[in-house]
Amino acid sequence: MKSDLDALMQEKNLDAILVFGHAEHNPPMRYLTGGGHVSHATLIKKRGEGAVFFVGDMERDEAAKSGLKIISYSNYDYDELLKKANNDKALAGAMRSELMFKDAGIESGRVGLYGTYELGAIFGMLARLKELMPGIEIVGEVREDSIFMQAMETKDESEVERIRRIGKITTNTVDRVRDFLTHCDVRDDEVLLKDDGSPLTVGDVHAKIRLWVAEQGAELPSGFIFAIGRDAGVPHSAGNPGDLMKLGQTIVFDIYPAESGGGYYYDFTRTWSLGYATPEAQELFDQVKEIYDELSNNFDLNAPFRNYQKMTCEYFESKGHKTPLNTKTPIEGYVHGLGHGVGLNIHERPFSGITSDDSHRLMPGVVITSEPGLYYPEKGMGFRIEDTIWVRPDGRMEILAEYPYDFVLPMKKWKKK
Amino acid sequence: MKSDLDALMQEKNLDAILVFGHAEHNPPMRYLTGGGHVSHATLIKKRGEGAVFFVGDMERDEAAKSGLKIISYSNYDYDELLKKANNDKALAGAMRSELMFKDAGIESGRVGLYGTYELGAIFGMLARLKELMPGIEIVGEVREDSIFMQAMETKDESEVERIRRIGKITTNTVDRVRDFLTHCDVRDDEVLLKDDGSPLTVGDVHAKIRLWVAEQGAELPSGFIFAIGRDAGVPHSAGNPGDLMKLGQTIVFDIYPAESGGGYYYDFTRTWSLGYATPEAQELFDQVKEIYDELSNNFDLNAPFRNYQKMTCEYFESKGHKTPLNTKTPIEGYVHGLGHGVGLNIHERPFSGITSDDSHRLMPGVVITSEPGLYYPEKGMGFRIEDTIWVRPDGRMEILAEYPYDFVLPMKKWKKK
Repeated sequence: MKSDLDALMQEKNLDAILVFGHAEHNPPMRYLTGGGHVSHATLIKKRGEGAVFFVGDMERDEAAKSGLKIISYSNYDYDELLKKANNDKALAGAMRSELMFKDAGIESGRVGLYGTYELGAIFGMLARLKELMPGIEIVGEVREDSIFMQAMETKDESEVERIRRIGKITTNTVDRVRDFLTHCDVRDDEVLLKDDGSPLTVGDVHAKIRLWVAEQGAELPSGFIFAIGRDAGVPHSAGNPGDLMKLGQTIVFDIYPAESGGGYYYDFTRTWSLGYATPEAQELFDQVKEIYDELSNNFDLNAPFRNYQKMTCEYFESKGHKTPLNTKTPIEGYVHGLGHGVGLNIHERPFSGITSDDSHRLMPGVVITSEPGLYYPEKGMGFRIEDTIWVRPDGRMEILAEYPYDFVLPMKKWKKK
Repeated sequence: MKSDLDALMQEKNLDAILVFGHAEHNPPMRYLTGGGHVSHATLIKKRGEGAVFFVGDMERDEAAKSGLKIISYSNYDYDELLKKANNDKALAGAMRSELMFKDAGIESGRVGLYGTYELGAIFGMLARLKELMPGIEIVGEVREDSIFMQAMETKDESEVERIRRIGKITTNTVDRVRDFLTHCDVRDDEVLLKDDGSPLTVGDVHAKIRLWVAEQGAELPSGFIFAIGRDAGVPHSAGNPGDLMKLGQTIVFDIYPAESGGGYYYDFTRTWSLGYATPEAQELFDQVKEIYDELSNNFDLNAPFRNYQKMTCEYFESKGHKTPLNTKTPIEGYVHGLGHGVGLNIHERPFSGITSDDSHRLMPGVVITSEPGLYYPEKGMGFRIEDTIWVRPDGRMEILAEYPYDFVLPMKKWKKK
């Protein structure tokens, strides 16, 4: 949790942290500032003290909502610095950063670097800052073990409420898509039709999904997945917009809306087959559902997450599928990890990889996905079931937005002949 | 233009470029790959050669759309590297990067660093890579002078067409908002009403704007501005969602949609006053419109952009307003730059700042904004007019999406008593 940050800094021997970038779509900055339209910002926090938020003059109102100490960049006379630096912009930027560090009470020490921003601009500036402040050591942590990923790993109840709220928006959208699809007319060749009689495409459905998420005031990253047939068999294929919607083909619908401005995410997948399913598809779906249920019945407080990846692989291998347990990066069968933490990052700690260490556990307060799947692109089919689950402090595992698992969706105006 | 990249690399003495991050919402990566849902990617391009695009296995289909040479990360056995590195993840990452550099044909030389990504992760990895490949020098360029910002500065006709298309979506949305507002009922206290008889808020209008942009398949960054009264007087205030929509107050509507996935932007502002305007507001609006027109009549091919910032400041100072010409970072009057380039970045070269050098010119092929404004938050008013303008190779300045400049919008169901 956020209150762990100072202890984590101590543990990693960091005297301060330095965060760059926008207050939104930038998890460490959003975590510390609460968001708002504040771009090109800098945040410096000394261990044990409040953060100082450096922003442009024009964004002072937005920045003030953070409740942090605000210093405007205009406090530092950049034009004057540029003159002093003989028009060397990287040096002038470093001179300004030196003044900012001093205003944040930092003259030397180990400083952790965070945030998402333009790499080259910061790399160049920090190279010059090193000349100006040799006592400052900039430290780049490995992503998954960084103090932010560790602090963010456990959520307090207000964070869980926000994830639950976005979960409700997610299932509302999924339900609306289900309702829309099952009410379509169907042509003789089993292609779904729009109101105007033309064929319904995957692209048409993508547009509806975008619209229905936007209507609820949430944000939908552009890579969400609504894919049919072969594309459903490629785990991260978004779906080919030109594909026609047909009965009896597997549809993977993986959607992860976020609060507006890149806030908390919800991650969710269902697999559908409209009208009917082929016997082979039904069998594979049933396997995915069986291991999904077995996992749900076996999640234990504080157990290593990777144990469940192993359980999933063993189950699927017993059914004759390839998995990462005994195949290097398979592209058919079960081809990915079981799950991941969800929060301000769509993928965050804990991770379920078989090589993940014991620190990736089902600790009280983590929010994880469970998402077993099977992929057979050559057979033109794929399957995945995914919910976002809160590991409650009382040890109960709570799906934050419940939704039915039906595979075959009966069509309202079509019956198998 | 993109075809200038190799020459720019030569000019800056760069033997290769290294780009990190997602293929979308990451201008250098989108520029070179064309986008698609490809996350955590790496691109390495040797000068004079095609780029190599390194991606995860699961995103191979999306990455293939780029037409670039694709190498999957799974070609490098990370678990094996991690063992060799005694579980030091930063070192294992650097060892993988070393193999990737070699596969891209690079053993030494000056390598420019670009893209938007998690700073700490890359900073830490590059520090270790330096130990493994001492012959590689990583170079971080100043943002505004980088080879990408220089290449992107001039657009070819296909890029202009894309900006024009998003411009049409922009003005369609603005027109729909105008139509919606002017058809509202009005209460005795001049507050606009919704269909259900409750007051219309700024937040309600924000929701409509989001929806209407999404319906057209475009993306709207969360910081767009629809602000009334005092908030209209703070240039980057997004507008307070709780504010009631009232007649006779200035509304600043600054909207910059982009193609889905963070593609090309359009940037646009109008200022409105519903029903009527106060004489003071009308006078200030007329000044903004007068200088806007004067600028339009004076833009010359190849002239330094800053000349027009100076012209704008001189005009406003002649009318008694503060401007950056003679006031350090004013917060009332004319408080910002005249404009900026628009492309895959909402703000890119050329820039109009008075201290910008001569290289920021109205060169054939640049796409710029012209956006004079006046801001008086204490008086509860603000004004800005902005269009996006293509500097055509034939020297003509073309507004890429025309829209009327009316300030007072007559209400359909209300007349001044």
